This record gives sequence, structure tokens and C-alpha cells, in this order.
Amino acid sequence: MRLRRKPWIDKKIADFKDICFYLPEQIKSIRPGFWHEVFGRIAPLHAELGSGKGRFITQLALRHPEINYLAVEAQKDVAYYIALKARELELKNLRILVFDINHILDIFAPNEADRFYLNFCDPWPKSRHAKRRLTHVNFLRKYRSLLKPEGDIHFKTDNRALFDFSLEQFAQENLKIDKLTFDLHADFMPDNIMTEYEEKFSALGSKINRCELRFQ
Amino acid sequence: MRLRRKPWIDKKIADFKDICFYLPEQIKSIRPGFWHEVFGRIAPLHAELGSGKGRFITQLALRHPEINYLAVEAQKDVAYYIALKARELELKNLRILVFDINHILDIFAPNEADRFYLNFCDPWPKSRHAKRRLTHVNFLRKYRSLLKPEGDIHFKTDNRALFDFSLEQFAQENLKIDKLTFDLHADFMPDNIMTEYEEKFSALGSKINRCELRFQ
Repeated sequence: MRLRRKPWIDKKIADFKDICFYLPEQIKSIRPGFWHEVFGRIAPLHAELGSGKGRFITQLALRHPEINYLAVEAQKDVAYYIALKARELELKNLRILVFDINHILDIFAPNEADRFYLNFCDPWPKSRHAKRRLTHVNFLRKYRSLLKPEGDIHFKTDNRALFDFSLEQFAQENLKIDKLTFDLHADFMPDNIMTEYEEKFSALGSKINRCELRFQ
Repeated sequence: MRLRRKPWIDKKIADFKDICFYLPEQIKSIRPGFWHEVFGRIAPLHAELGSGKGRFITQLALRHPEINYLAVEAQKDVAYYIALKARELELKNLRILVFDINHILDIFAPNEADRFYLNFCDPWPKSRHAKRRLTHVNFLRKYRSLLKPEGDIHFKTDNRALFDFSLEQFAQENLKIDKLTFDLHADFMPDNIMTEYEEKFSALGSKINRCELRFQ
């Protein structure tokens, strides 16, 4: 997601420093393996990798107070909107991290996470950019190391080429593919939470692909 | 596969009665659980469900003399060509059965088979015919009961809609999807044997989808 640069956010975001970590010193002080201390309680840790404006994860956090949620979003100006929603909904179980997922090994300890959500990540359509796709085997290996053995990944995309590529990567990396659908909204899935992007593009007729992955 | 009816085959096929079972009394005398007696030896049992003219299974049988192969084909006139190839190649490890796969539970015993091949099966494009597709969950449940726990299924099709449908069915039935590709011929797969159909349609530019399934 690209937004026009909004300089006023640089100031406003400071109001959310307690739940949205974006300052270099905040990022540096992250200790992998200690997210439960950040949340002030031991609970399952679910992270969305690339949260955009955060409707998905804030609604999820609202529904599941028993889970510790972490929204990871590379762009501060976008992350601001997640913080805004979190404050509005008075969410105690959500934190926001302005961070580049390429360095994901620096923020979690092995076996620390219980679930990763990948929602409408950048398809990087050119073959020479395939390694940047968040479902490339290189990323899958990182996720595997950070997730608990019984952990899982929930993946949605409207981009069929990305989805096909991803399925091949999952099989190659020996993941178990569960609850696969090429048309999520045609199925009965009452607990689906739509991202902002999903709502817009499914209204325009795009089919949403979804599956869950287990590492066994 | 549909062929023009060739009345002369009714006579000629009798030359192959020892390897091609098509007579009502032959079919009736099949005893599930006793295929090893038909082959005269105990060996893994691999069956192709819908063999067409049989290039795939005859070439496979030639390469793997250690396996007992069964070609199942509904049409006698088509099965004849499998028998012809089997005789020409002097295959001792291949038998041909003229049989409707809908009744597959009548020819194998539980846990009798080690592998099923599904190659370019009829896509039955209309939704109301979905249950006829050989990858429908109703069929998958039958295969599961007939295969050994460590058994598997190898599936190829050029029909993308059938493949998508099938992947959803596999996930729904909790199968492990392995070696998934949406473009088999773009990958390095030196031991791929092309069916007659596959050669024709891939030459015309159709992409071949393939995966392997395990029941765990």
C-alpha cells in the first residue's frame, strides 16, 4: 500500500508511542522472545505481516481478547491508522510495529509465534522479484523457525498468479495446505474479516484466494 | 476419451484375454485383496484409473518391473490398445481391466493398493456433474480406504478448472499436497512420462498441472 506522504503524521503518531513502536530506539530495544513482556501477559502471539491500515487485525483483536496481536507494517504513515483504530476500540491486546519484514528474524525468537497472517501482500509480478514475495520459500523457512511446531499461517490474496506461485512454494517447503479456496466469498465463512483492500476489490469482482498452512 | 466404435476389436481383443480382463465372467471372478495372485507374485500394486490408450502405464511398467501395474479403462475398444502395447513390450507386470471406476470398491480390498494414478480424467465441466469428477471427495474417500496408509495418488491434468476444484477437494479431505506445479513441463522432471493426450495438448500450448497426494 502506498499513501501520499502526510507530514502531520510525524507529530500525531507520537500520541501512540505506547502501542505503536516506530522510533529507532524503540525498534532497537525489541528483545526477541520477550513479546509477552510487552503485552504484560503470557498469551498466544499472532502477528499480521503487512497490516496496511489495520482493519483486519483490529477487528480480530476485538473478537479475541485472549490473543496477543502484533501488527507489522513497514510504513509509518500507514501504521498510524492502525494505532488510531486500536485506540478507538480500546484494544489492550494489540501492538503495532513499524518494521520491514525482511528482517523478521530480528524481532521474534525461535518458536515464539503461534500464527502469522499474510493478507494481500505485494505480488511482485516480475520473476526477478520472486524472492521478495512474502510466500517465497526463503520467507517460509524463516516463518517455520519462528513459529511453534503447531503454529500456522493464514494467507489471503486476490492475485491469482501470486497464489499459484505460493501454493507451489508451500508444497516445495513441505507445508500442509488446509482450507484451500479460490473463491473465499463464494464459500460460507461467517468469521471472515475483510481487509480494506479485500472489501474494495471483491466488490469489483475479484475472487479472493485463501488457505491455511501447517508445518506439522 | 471417445473412439469410433470398431467392431473388429470385439474379436481381436480375445487374443489378450490373459492380460486384459473384459468378459463379464472375468470381471465377476475378481476377488478384492487377491491381485497378487493374478500377477503371480507379491509386489506393490499401482493402478491407473482411466488409462486411455495406455502409453503412460505401459512405459511406467517397462521402467519398473518390480511393481505390479493395473490399467483400469472403462472402454473395451480403448483398452485394446493398452493390451497391444503390453504384448509388444512383453510386459509381465501389467494387467488391464475394463471397468467403471465408480465401482472401484468392488475390485480392491481395503489397504490393497500402493498408488493410484489419475491422468487427464474427465473434467465434467458442469457443476451439477461435479460428483462425477474422479477427484471429488466421494472418490477421495474411496481411494483412502483402498490405499495403504503410506500410499499416494499422482494426479495430472491440463484442465485448470478441474485442478483448482481438485486442490480444494484435497484440502477439504485433509490430504497432504506434494510436488505441486501448475506448469509441469516448465519444471525439470526428467522421469515424467507423457500420456498421448498430454503430448498432444502440451504441444498446442496447454500447461500441465500436477501434484501428488498423501493421506498421512
